[in-house]
Amino acid sequence: MNLTGRKALSFIHDDFEDLEYWYPVYRLREAGMVVETAGEGAGRIYHGKYGVPAAADLSFDQARSDDYDVLLVPGGWAPDKLRRFPAVLEITRAMNNSGKIIGQICHAGWVLISAGILDGKRVTSTPGIRDDMVNAGATWVDEAVVVDGNLVSSRRPPDLPAYLAALLDTLTAR
Amino acid sequence: MNLTGRKALSFIHDDFEDLEYWYPVYRLREAGMVVETAGEGAGRIYHGKYGVPAAADLSFDQARSDDYDVLLVPGGWAPDKLRRFPAVLEITRAMNNSGKIIGQICHAGWVLISAGILDGKRVTSTPGIRDDMVNAGATWVDEAVVVDGNLVSSRRPPDLPAYLAALLDTLTAR
Repeated sequence: MNLTGRKALSFIHDDFEDLEYWYPVYRLREAGMVVETAGEGAGRIYHGKYGVPAAADLSFDQARSDDYDVLLVPGGWAPDKLRRFPAVLEITRAMNNSGKIIGQICHAGWVLISAGILDGKRVTSTPGIRDDMVNAGATWVDEAVVVDGNLVSSRRPPDLPAYLAALLDTLTAR
Repeated sequence: MNLTGRKALSFIHDDFEDLEYWYPVYRLREAGMVVETAGEGAGRIYHGKYGVPAAADLSFDQARSDDYDVLLVPGGWAPDKLRRFPAVLEITRAMNNSGKIIGQICHAGWVLISAGILDGKRVTSTPGIRDDMVNAGATWVDEAVVVDGNLVSSRRPPDLPAYLAALLDTLTAR
């Protein structure tokens, strides 16, 4: 699998789930992709729930959805912050409208809920936000990974191997 | 790449480098492998430098080198502890003598030094232990990943994509 030259964007904010941010980022780089991270400003350093650091490469406002093939939304508490930025929701909607692959894990679904793109979709997430996902119109299932069109979702860190396998399969099938 | 049914063993101790333990573990699981972790006792919980937890599945004394195709040694400060356990060094030597693949990253080289298996080998590591690696008889180079026979080595977390790509290539070439 060689995805050299294809690009992914990850969102980031404080208290991201350390492995849910880093495993997908490193994994797509291993597959040859360029992965960039958008936060509140270029160079800003965020820390995961456990304290693993990660830097933003560009600001939410600088990120252009047309530049990317994949959007990654990490879990942890970061999604509670991310959903408050209009630019985050605009990028999410634009990439969804273009049929770009969107990966969400754990609490990441909060961002997709606020972007208004889950109605009628089959998804999973941490059970903690199942009710929010259902209230947003999604069909929620308790599986390690769920693929519905361009949306790939997983529940929690131990699902990361299944999550990335499915995300890469979906990407290479295009 | 499907390595279903093949097995890897990772060592663990406190203050492991969080991503250097977890990325290889999840990545080999994504490739279909079973990955088990040996610590001081089955069920014992360790915490990485940043606090990400990880559990031991079995004790160093319970781990049988014949059961595994790959040995993973994470970095961080854990190797300073790991090298003090005779069973850790015995497993490392036995797997090396059998030509099994051994992956070492960052400070992991301390374990291989104490196992006495680096003389004449070409390796990398964190620059912090370069002198220890050279004094153990290795040729040290500053590259993201170095493969010398069954030994695969890397320097630090950002090298993880290159490290696992090389480790999996080496494994599937057999």
